[in-house]
Amino acid sequence: MSAFTGNHILSVSQFDREQLEQIFAVADQMVPYAKREKVTRVLEGAILNNLFFEASTRTRLSFGSAFNLLGGEVRETTGLKSSALAKGESLYDTARVISGYADIIVMRHPMEGSVAEFAKASRVPVLNGGDGSNEHPSQALLDLFTMRKELARFDRDLDEVKVAMIGDLAHGRTVHSLSRLLALYKKVSFTFVAPKELGMPIEIVEYLIEKGHEVTETQSLEQGIADVDIVYQTRIQEERFSSQEVANQYRGAYRINQYVYSQFCQPSTVIMHPLPRDSRAEANELDTDLNENPNLAIFRQTDNGVLVRMALFALILGVEEKVAEYARPVNWYIGKRF
Amino acid sequence: MSAFTGNHILSVSQFDREQLEQIFAVADQMVPYAKREKVTRVLEGAILNNLFFEASTRTRLSFGSAFNLLGGEVRETTGLKSSALAKGESLYDTARVISGYADIIVMRHPMEGSVAEFAKASRVPVLNGGDGSNEHPSQALLDLFTMRKELARFDRDLDEVKVAMIGDLAHGRTVHSLSRLLALYKKVSFTFVAPKELGMPIEIVEYLIEKGHEVTETQSLEQGIADVDIVYQTRIQEERFSSQEVANQYRGAYRINQYVYSQFCQPSTVIMHPLPRDSRAEANELDTDLNENPNLAIFRQTDNGVLVRMALFALILGVEEKVAEYARPVNWYIGKRF
Amino acid sequence: MSAFTGNHILSVSQFDREQLEQIFAVADQMVPYAKREKVTRVLEGAILNNLFFEASTRTRLSFGSAFNLLGGEVRETTGLKSSALAKGESLYDTARVISGYADIIVMRHPMEGSVAEFAKASRVPVLNGGDGSNEHPSQALLDLFTMRKELARFDRDLDEVKVAMIGDLAHGRTVHSLSRLLALYKKVSFTFVAPKELGMPIEIVEYLIEKGHEVTETQSLEQGIADVDIVYQTRIQEERFSSQEVANQYRGAYRINQYVYSQFCQPSTVIMHPLPRDSRAEANELDTDLNENPNLAIFRQTDNGVLVRMALFALILGVEEKVAEYARPVNWYIGKRF
Repeated sequence: MSAFTGNHILSVSQFDREQLEQIFAVADQMVPYAKREKVTRVLEGAILNNLFFEASTRTRLSFGSAFNLLGGEVRETTGLKSSALAKGESLYDTARVISGYADIIVMRHPMEGSVAEFAKASRVPVLNGGDGSNEHPSQALLDLFTMRKELARFDRDLDEVKVAMIGDLAHGRTVHSLSRLLALYKKVSFTFVAPKELGMPIEIVEYLIEKGHEVTETQSLEQGIADVDIVYQTRIQEERFSSQEVANQYRGAYRINQYVYSQFCQPSTVIMHPLPRDSRAEANELDTDLNENPNLAIFRQTDNGVLVRMALFALILGVEEKVAEYARPVNWYIGKRF
Repeated sequence: MSAFTGNHILSVSQFDREQLEQIFAVADQMVPYAKREKVTRVLEGAILNNLFFEASTRTRLSFGSAFNLLGGEVRETTGLKSSALAKGESLYDTARVISGYADIIVMRHPMEGSVAEFAKASRVPVLNGGDGSNEHPSQALLDLFTMRKELARFDRDLDEVKVAMIGDLAHGRTVHSLSRLLALYKKVSFTFVAPKELGMPIEIVEYLIEKGHEVTETQSLEQGIADVDIVYQTRIQEERFSSQEVANQYRGAYRINQYVYSQFCQPSTVIMHPLPRDSRAEANELDTDLNENPNLAIFRQTDNGVLVRMALFALILGVEEKVAEYARPVNWYIGKRF
Repeated sequence: MSAFTGNHILSVSQFDREQLEQIFAVADQMVPYAKREKVTRVLEGAILNNLFFEASTRTRLSFGSAFNLLGGEVRETTGLKSSALAKGESLYDTARVISGYADIIVMRHPMEGSVAEFAKASRVPVLNGGDGSNEHPSQALLDLFTMRKELARFDRDLDEVKVAMIGDLAHGRTVHSLSRLLALYKKVSFTFVAPKELGMPIEIVEYLIEKGHEVTETQSLEQGIADVDIVYQTRIQEERFSSQEVANQYRGAYRINQYVYSQFCQPSTVIMHPLPRDSRAEANELDTDLNENPNLAIFRQTDNGVLVRMALFALILGVEEKVAEYARPVNWYIGKRF
């Protein structure tokens, strides 16, 4: 039994530093299963309900795979139109009903606060898979886990890390949540690079300063990415703007390619991005000429997402210490992974 | 081997009273698996094909979970557009092909009679998950099972039960099917509360009278719900009307809240609803102030749906007596359920 | 380890005759599992990602069932809109990310060459489930496997087989791929029956002639189907035409029914079709009065599709010799199959 057993994961604000370390320690133990060196069947017979009332491919697949990797089954719903919610059903009713069909639920919904409201009526634990512009805690956790792992290559940890966050910091729920999590560590240095109108919300900036961290705000990419450990680039979230035209004013404002990296970054600076990266010419947030850069961590991030989600499932369902007990050899050819 | 082994479930008219009791007895045995006190793997390796050519969340998830709870795998199709039917394929062809991909099929389709037509060509058993305004037998079974269970709390059974059905009784396939099943019991008293234009079809009323039951028809909610054991409220099925405007004339015609319940119902009257309940202000079929009423059985209904669907799968696939043989302990933390 | 272990299946051009025979030999061994005489759990714990960026019911379900029949789990994505590709993500990125969620991937995509491009960046094996008008190799394999099996009833093999292909031979990727595979056998006789504008592409005709096969082109159905072993009828692929009107000029050009069959075909001529067959009056490619004709092989084709896809999975994942080792009895009632 841990602090997570039987509980919801709704917001990054529910975690303290010790709990983060616990999640990361369990995530580390998941590596052999995700790399397919071993199979575990610890959750054989358990059912995850993946409720995606807003479109998603990678988050949905990542949660689904994580549950399968622990031996459980996945039932899914995608889209809002076909659901009973469209017939006037309340979130309370939906939660009471659907929580009778599963052992654990992951829910994404376009409306802020909807997942927390759903969780109140659910009879099984609920993980927030993203509620509008509000929260996406598993993304923040996998980002933090990735930073921790990348820094470990240089014998560093998250204390005193220097992070630059770039792009639409006003609408990006991942940068909001990630900042709040980083605030749990010591003396973090934040540099926020954004167009004037898309800056980090003032309440988050104030919160970080209050917690003793250093915050720099700039509109200059060159200034922002110099002398940091992590560059966290983001996508202009077109779907959160009033129109494509308004969004287009900002797409392409900050482009990083190998030339920019070599000119302005430290040689060990790690490049991250919550993905998908917009590779169309007018945006090109991270040029493909960075793909061979060993410090480009974007695909390690998504791989780490599976580990973190496995850890969350294991902790919530209280099986984190039984995973190995139900391990078996892998029957099939796996080639090289990661 | 039972009367169900290897057979389709297409219509409530295929059941006699003894068969209903057999389904309910097997459903009762499913409780420990649905409550996650035990896991069974009796259907490990079996494949359910959930073919939902018409939108559904709860029915689809309920069937899927029921199959997973027995240890089987679920493959799904949702929507009509993307299917071969849209390319001019006949139901016969679809059935011949798809029945080669599964051990059992659940099918929902907007067209009356389509599931029965499909079943004729299928090489595996087919369960009707709803064919237009026609039939939805598993809903009727779970409703009847719920009535039986709720009445048992008062040491009553289904003979001589008094039931009020309310709302759009013209289009509601659940009230049609449920009435036909109740007709198999003795001296049932039916009260049908509906706007004049949306009354219970005359052939059903005549059938019930012919079978020796008492039928009362009224437009008055207050009269209808007085002195009954079960109040079965329903939704105005907007999607079955010519327009939203026509449907709106009837939405909200019959509203039940705690005040109405206290004023007009017996203290032990059980409240049911096939769900989803329309909780928008202009409809508000069952007010949320009933949520704490211990006789509100609507969420027990959906939980019972899983039990009944497990029973149907077990009986059709002939494993109803092997379920316990493949039982195992549950590895994970389950909290409190039901 | 075979030539297939760990490799992609992208195009029929990657196979030689010996490899085809190897696939078919493994497919033959899959019969008892597909017929549910036995269950195998050899891929328990493995994850297939079924990525269908273009609509499909039968191909998607067939691959999914094949993987389940080997004991593995299936995660799915359908539709293009909801995917990250719609947010400007490159196929390279999608492949790098999603290949971290699965052990093997089946992908369908409307764009020619997209699956091969995806496969280059994937860290796990990829099977082409259809890329636009280009390739659909598993369909060609199951067709060839079916021909081989049907001919075996008459103690014949694929050498010197006489095949008539009928319909829209310009757009039909299945007839293109199938012709290339047949070209690996000896002295095949091809008869292509098509409207003038929808004939077999010249490069394929030249390729077949160069390989020493006999090619006849005609617009006459009666001539084309006389004196052949196999009649391979196809659908006018409406979705590949500029408009429904243009497509409609050709729908119904070649209709085969029992009368036509008796008049013009040999008594042992086998009738095949990649399905779905368009049974609407204006098309009616294969009349339903052929359904009782024992040489109508269309539903044996789709059943064979499961066997061939099981074989591909087993070979790619290197478990083709372990399938029986993980076999178990079937617990449930299976009735008669095939």
